[in-house]
Amino acid sequence: MINQRVIQDLSKVVGKDNIIKSKIALASYSFDSSPYKGHPGVVVFPTTTEMVAQIMKIANKYNVPVLPRGAGTSLSGGTIAPPGSIVISLTKMNKILEVNPQGKYALVEGGATNKAIQLAAQPYGLMFAPDPGSQNVATIGGNIAANAGGMRGVKYGSTKDNLLGLEIVLPSGEVITTGGLNSDIEGNIDLTYLFCGSEGTFGIVTKAWVSLTPIYSDIMTMTATFPSLEDAGSCVAEIIAQGVIPTAMEIMDNIVIVALEEYMQMGLDKTAEALLLIEIDGFSSEVQAQGEKIIKALENNKANNYQIAKNVEDRQELWRGRRSVNGALGKIRPGMLVHDIVVPRDRLAFMLKKVAEIAKKYNIIIGQVAHAGDGNSHPSLLYDHRNSEELERVEKAGEEIIKEALAQGGVITGEHGIGIEKIKYMNLAFTPASLLYMAKVKEAFDPDNLTNPGKKLPPELQGQGGDKLGEQKLRAN
Amino acid sequence: MINQRVIQDLSKVVGKDNIIKSKIALASYSFDSSPYKGHPGVVVFPTTTEMVAQIMKIANKYNVPVLPRGAGTSLSGGTIAPPGSIVISLTKMNKILEVNPQGKYALVEGGATNKAIQLAAQPYGLMFAPDPGSQNVATIGGNIAANAGGMRGVKYGSTKDNLLGLEIVLPSGEVITTGGLNSDIEGNIDLTYLFCGSEGTFGIVTKAWVSLTPIYSDIMTMTATFPSLEDAGSCVAEIIAQGVIPTAMEIMDNIVIVALEEYMQMGLDKTAEALLLIEIDGFSSEVQAQGEKIIKALENNKANNYQIAKNVEDRQELWRGRRSVNGALGKIRPGMLVHDIVVPRDRLAFMLKKVAEIAKKYNIIIGQVAHAGDGNSHPSLLYDHRNSEELERVEKAGEEIIKEALAQGGVITGEHGIGIEKIKYMNLAFTPASLLYMAKVKEAFDPDNLTNPGKKLPPELQGQGGDKLGEQKLRAN
Repeated sequence: MINQRVIQDLSKVVGKDNIIKSKIALASYSFDSSPYKGHPGVVVFPTTTEMVAQIMKIANKYNVPVLPRGAGTSLSGGTIAPPGSIVISLTKMNKILEVNPQGKYALVEGGATNKAIQLAAQPYGLMFAPDPGSQNVATIGGNIAANAGGMRGVKYGSTKDNLLGLEIVLPSGEVITTGGLNSDIEGNIDLTYLFCGSEGTFGIVTKAWVSLTPIYSDIMTMTATFPSLEDAGSCVAEIIAQGVIPTAMEIMDNIVIVALEEYMQMGLDKTAEALLLIEIDGFSSEVQAQGEKIIKALENNKANNYQIAKNVEDRQELWRGRRSVNGALGKIRPGMLVHDIVVPRDRLAFMLKKVAEIAKKYNIIIGQVAHAGDGNSHPSLLYDHRNSEELERVEKAGEEIIKEALAQGGVITGEHGIGIEKIKYMNLAFTPASLLYMAKVKEAFDPDNLTNPGKKLPPELQGQGGDKLGEQKLRAN
Repeated sequence: MINQRVIQDLSKVVGKDNIIKSKIALASYSFDSSPYKGHPGVVVFPTTTEMVAQIMKIANKYNVPVLPRGAGTSLSGGTIAPPGSIVISLTKMNKILEVNPQGKYALVEGGATNKAIQLAAQPYGLMFAPDPGSQNVATIGGNIAANAGGMRGVKYGSTKDNLLGLEIVLPSGEVITTGGLNSDIEGNIDLTYLFCGSEGTFGIVTKAWVSLTPIYSDIMTMTATFPSLEDAGSCVAEIIAQGVIPTAMEIMDNIVIVALEEYMQMGLDKTAEALLLIEIDGFSSEVQAQGEKIIKALENNKANNYQIAKNVEDRQELWRGRRSVNGALGKIRPGMLVHDIVVPRDRLAFMLKKVAEIAKKYNIIIGQVAHAGDGNSHPSLLYDHRNSEELERVEKAGEEIIKEALAQGGVITGEHGIGIEKIKYMNLAFTPASLLYMAKVKEAFDPDNLTNPGKKLPPELQGQGGDKLGEQKLRAN
């Protein structure tokens, strides 16, 4: 599939130990965390920016598509390899180059994991605010590609809001630096923000300056269950209306509560229709005052029982539960299609109910977890890929969920990206003119459509070779 | 200068009452708040998006450059009209279309003033966080074009951080909508943020969805003077290190203190070398706790006297002082070149001292006011335009300030934009490759260089006609 001269040239750049070309070894780079399959031609592991630039020049010379890849945690197929592509794994460019506690920033390589940044910042009482579910392995390059958010997004924003600057290898092989330590307030053509969310279609992030946020020692974490999703929803609305900005506010539906309880025996009430997991942080007086407002809101909205974590272990246990939702749901069916819709905050309770109706209509199981503070919901549509008829119902239900989110004034992805999964919805979400100008921006950076072709944009707006990925079938995760 | 057929076509679109073509009337559209002069061919006042689109189509038909203009408060010459251009004034598209207190957003037309948005939001206890000095007249379109910040930027960010979506008329005349009520967390190619800071070079903002922020009723405002800029600087560092995020933290140097006192008789100590104006807001317990930390920092850093505003009138008086700085400095010299550098926060005290040295070296008067919380400083270089030798010194001192800011890891503009004033510094601030790709993005939107040509990018990267503005001489404001 890939020209042997390409492989020879690449070997010269990265060295024999940093290249994978055997069919069997390539197989493990054929997947990411989405239910799709790719076909890499070769995988290289550069260790310097200069190497990445040279790889891009080889890609240009032979006109071979390139896929930048971190940990491969994309849920939307953003890191599915185009046929015969050069996969550039950033995993050996994973250094934390600088942590500057006074300036509250860190300079890291593109393949540094989110977790590694957290660990490097922690001794200074700092954190990198974005905390996607995959943070233990996901790389900063991937966080930037998808504009990852996470639990703390409601208070601290997404990756975009915590990004200062980038070093990027462009599709041409040119290297540019964007932004800088002050870019958050720079009045200029903003390439940093443009790259954030572009899913590797504009170039490859080799370094990132990220801002760090103080970790408050005063943290309050609590859970409560509700007799209905509406009650939980109006509780969320009351909390926000009180001016409280929680660090995290997660809502889970009955399917997830039951799955979690059976998976982990946490003592959850399996008859509850909704569970809220709320965390606040700040100065101790502030946490106290906000906590009181939250408890009042719980009481006003039929919270059946609520408990406040008594210590760090208690809190970690609650979060371990939240982070185990996918594992718990995986016990029900082997396959899972996770959507990533966002609706205006005040439409969330309605949307959760609507998704439950859609599940019933198509006779499938959908577990729902949402970042209630910012309206970002993750319905997990469960299936068995051996049941092709069920697969079809899952696809149809997914489309109906997407359409309903758009009808509520929402968007089709909050933090997982378009990848290949949601390309088919781009024409529903954007007008032809909007899509056209997105494609023009892509073309400005990548006129030959070399970096991550076939992603984000509909086939008719892809440059050459961009339609090769085509329609993809779901598989078991 | 402008083809009569262009004017006839434009008249048909906007109607006779919405066009200015007489030389005398055009004169008042030859200026903005910068010391430069433009040469508009005609000014039109569309009242609908459709009209703006039709105007752009006429501009394309006759290949005439276009300048979108709000209140003309640009300090960098961003709204200086290219020779023979169509000036599209947005001032008649100034409606607040919706205020949604539950969703905490407003939908406004591009010519709505910042002030009008504040007034519309206020009854719901909300505000639009960006508050540039010109907020009484400046329009949201201009705020977006320059990514305006203001005093509250340190806590609430710049326009970019408070912007949800846009309706834009592109140079082609096509209309697109970007972002949406959830765009702040959308994982997608982000045209909203790209337009923010593009100074009207990519298209014309006809509508904006902006996010609104709760106004806390608990506000504490205080001032303190210091025997040196270093003391004020280390006080700022201590406040930030304590985890306090003030709503505003303004620092002024002795030149400004003296000018203000002579202008307004506020009772300021004219021997003080620095003045800090600090405001915090939040829940009352939080304000209390933060206020205590600030007072301790003041005491630790030789604050000579500090006072806390006792009531709303007191507070408003302090802010009236801050907002009168330009007027006060105008009493010293008729002309003023205001720079807009940003340096890493911990380099600000050094930078303020350095600028004072540069003033001495070139024997000119420079008054300095800075948003200390985010390192954004506004040195005002005063001059008399009739003194051409002084003018030259001002230009040279300005260049030295820019170079020093870059040497400190800073950027050349925080919120005033590049306009025409700072084009000559773009090659200092960015690499050729970075500038090339900014130009490519511009070209993606505006291949014929019709909207606001001659701004932002160096002449060699301007498309056709973009070098017409050329070098501009300073004049008295």
